[in-house]
Amino acid sequence: MSRTGLASLRREVLAANLRLPRAGLATLTWGNVSGVDREAGVFVIKPSGVPYDRLTEDHLVVVALADGRVVEGDLRPSTDTETHRSLYRAFPSIGGVTHTHSPYAVAFAQARRPIPVLGTTHADTFDGAVPVTEPLTREQCTRDYEFNTGQIIVELLEGDDERARTVPAALVAHHGPFAWGADAHASLDHAVVCEAIAEMALHTLALGAVAPPQHLLDRHFTRKHGAGAYYGNPDAV
Amino acid sequence: MSRTGLASLRREVLAANLRLPRAGLATLTWGNVSGVDREAGVFVIKPSGVPYDRLTEDHLVVVALADGRVVEGDLRPSTDTETHRSLYRAFPSIGGVTHTHSPYAVAFAQARRPIPVLGTTHADTFDGAVPVTEPLTREQCTRDYEFNTGQIIVELLEGDDERARTVPAALVAHHGPFAWGADAHASLDHAVVCEAIAEMALHTLALGAVAPPQHLLDRHFTRKHGAGAYYGNPDAV
Amino acid sequence: MSRTGLASLRREVLAANLRLPRAGLATLTWGNVSGVDREAGVFVIKPSGVPYDRLTEDHLVVVALADGRVVEGDLRPSTDTETHRSLYRAFPSIGGVTHTHSPYAVAFAQARRPIPVLGTTHADTFDGAVPVTEPLTREQCTRDYEFNTGQIIVELLEGDDERARTVPAALVAHHGPFAWGADAHASLDHAVVCEAIAEMALHTLALGAVAPPQHLLDRHFTRKHGAGAYYGNPDAV
Amino acid sequence: MSRTGLASLRREVLAANLRLPRAGLATLTWGNVSGVDREAGVFVIKPSGVPYDRLTEDHLVVVALADGRVVEGDLRPSTDTETHRSLYRAFPSIGGVTHTHSPYAVAFAQARRPIPVLGTTHADTFDGAVPVTEPLTREQCTRDYEFNTGQIIVELLEGDDERARTVPAALVAHHGPFAWGADAHASLDHAVVCEAIAEMALHTLALGAVAPPQHLLDRHFTRKHGAGAYYGNPDAV
Repeated sequence: MSRTGLASLRREVLAANLRLPRAGLATLTWGNVSGVDREAGVFVIKPSGVPYDRLTEDHLVVVALADGRVVEGDLRPSTDTETHRSLYRAFPSIGGVTHTHSPYAVAFAQARRPIPVLGTTHADTFDGAVPVTEPLTREQCTRDYEFNTGQIIVELLEGDDERARTVPAALVAHHGPFAWGADAHASLDHAVVCEAIAEMALHTLALGAVAPPQHLLDRHFTRKHGAGAYYGNPDAV
Repeated sequence: MSRTGLASLRREVLAANLRLPRAGLATLTWGNVSGVDREAGVFVIKPSGVPYDRLTEDHLVVVALADGRVVEGDLRPSTDTETHRSLYRAFPSIGGVTHTHSPYAVAFAQARRPIPVLGTTHADTFDGAVPVTEPLTREQCTRDYEFNTGQIIVELLEGDDERARTVPAALVAHHGPFAWGADAHASLDHAVVCEAIAEMALHTLALGAVAPPQHLLDRHFTRKHGAGAYYGNPDAV
Repeated sequence: MSRTGLASLRREVLAANLRLPRAGLATLTWGNVSGVDREAGVFVIKPSGVPYDRLTEDHLVVVALADGRVVEGDLRPSTDTETHRSLYRAFPSIGGVTHTHSPYAVAFAQARRPIPVLGTTHADTFDGAVPVTEPLTREQCTRDYEFNTGQIIVELLEGDDERARTVPAALVAHHGPFAWGADAHASLDHAVVCEAIAEMALHTLALGAVAPPQHLLDRHFTRKHGAGAYYGNPDAV
Repeated sequence: MSRTGLASLRREVLAANLRLPRAGLATLTWGNVSGVDREAGVFVIKPSGVPYDRLTEDHLVVVALADGRVVEGDLRPSTDTETHRSLYRAFPSIGGVTHTHSPYAVAFAQARRPIPVLGTTHADTFDGAVPVTEPLTREQCTRDYEFNTGQIIVELLEGDDERARTVPAALVAHHGPFAWGADAHASLDHAVVCEAIAEMALHTLALGAVAPPQHLLDRHFTRKHGAGAYYGNPDAV
């Protein structure tokens, strides 16, 4: 394992976790971000139950992708670690995962309703509704619960990496949102968008939602994603 | 009474009270946190009506558990002091109490509806709905009103310390939430969770609530509480 | 006019105006607080349209109670100055006035619904619903509009100073809340409470409101107000 | 092109963009403000996808009004640049444009409902409902999409500069609010007001909206705008 690569990943994962409370997505110690090093076969994740204002790089835990074993770190990793691992294993394109209990996204998860596509804010990031899983069965809850939480997301997307890339978040029924992306920061960005569109959708439904034309949504998704994208200045700052 | 123990308790109670506005739970001087020293037979509580940004350890008031007499302190204790005392006397497991007027929890209290269990955010902390009391009778309002406010919570829980441990908050009808825990900070954490799940529940009810499976809720409560718990790093930081 | 008294009033009015954005009650330059010196026959008020982060004591405007003439100050006083003057003239007990466009209170004003009494948060400050005026007539809008805005509040309370003391705020139809109190800071406190109870009421109405027993409300109002009050530590800090 | 004038415009446009997150209107890098120099025939706009906390004057992009060509700057301008250009070209009175995805205004845009005039907060800035466009057709989305987004606003206002001055914002269907004003800061102020009145309107509709009398609305608009205006202290600070 490259020490330089891992040190850089630790820095990024710490920074992304510290963005959680600043983005208003974290209550108490809820919420966690991880980032993966595919070559090294490990991912770095927040420890369980440590307050954000005390979190340092040394607290982060390095976990093996293959079996979930802790490779480095003195603390117990986030209880959601096995869910992250399940997502990394199923979807090769994922470089980072974020889980939050942000209130509007949780409300949709608790109502077991997908977040519907109602406008361009949604379509800029998600090429379709943010889907919601079935509830876990008694058996899925009894054993390997956290890994199974990832597996129902994998099943929801039919294990399709392309779908994971075009709709980079899902709601676990009665639980909350998981988001992912090319790296830790991108996964957090998608968690931020997921909460923002959930809030907008709730207010829109209160006013009476109207379906937007698909050609408008397509235009927005493709101007930020794929070969013809022209949004952003990736190398600028 | 150990001076060292009391000094430490004062520090903790001050810190917990100062967390109230930072957690967004306090408007003006509303809200108060206390912590108990069972051996010394006293608890430490915020004075009445003092702004958080001026609050110091010297303002805190030490009150006797047995009769509510002020043992130390120049200021009048919080008007809710007798409610805290009633809870400490009824439930031996309680080490800290927090009272707030946080808006979503108050809305459920004003509607006299329990906060229903709609997902894992709730089940991580509360093993069941956050219950709501009956309104106080005219007689209960006339005499020993604040102590009686605690007593209707005690009656709601049938004086059962085990219930107080598994559902560490209650709503007083037309008033607001009281939360408790192993110490002052834990009681405040539970007040934070109570407000968060009240907000999520209100939004979920607007979307159409669906009952979650009990096995999912049980799994979440037991992974954080009891013999098999595996959440957190209690000794880490 | 006592220079010392006026200097002290200026300091208080500046401090109260600077609390408006910190309390989350101000958008742009909306909202203004004033304080009165009855002996000197003047009140001090925020100038019109000056951003809070640039506001200094020198910007404040001193206005004559008798005729609304500017006594000191280079700037134009708040457009709402005549509304403040109308309230000071009608209600001798008022020492300060606050006007805001805080969103939940404005929503009730726009719906022309009083803020109903649904719990103790309301009853701690207001001995009854926060009432809403009739809309101003065309004539009242054409001439002396701002003074007339005060006058419809005075008419709503039937010019009764006692009612102004026990329910220290009112909603002007399709406009927003005006609050008052013994001094500038007290009037701002009442504006803060008015917004908080409006938010709680909106959420409670969504859940299904239940009328609280009058004896509970009475208990709360009387423990903070009148001869038997026992809330706060007025001389402490 | 005057270097002094352009330097001053850059400073103003930077300052206005930095106000976006402070005003709570920006999520991630969403939202952009521009300002125009009519004599020089250029406008200055935020680059695409640059975080506000890293934005400097050097990042800003200078764009030709005539053809949208980048005149100065190393970065790609905001993807919404052509929408700004369309508005500047159609409405000579506009000196600045702001686009946001603020949640309440977006909710009305997504529901394709104008923000109705329900009170004086609205009437102080907007002489009528904030209108909403039709959705763009497939053809309008395929080619020159961003310029067409401006054009449907222009069509909505029938190209009438007077309407653009009296109602300085519009909602693009399923997208969000665009606001404008005499300069960059004024356009941002109008975006702030647009979000505030959208929030108030949503809450008012939940309570049951009542139409306000037109004479009240007229009074408020005219006291801030036009020959008889008496709000503010424009030269004071």
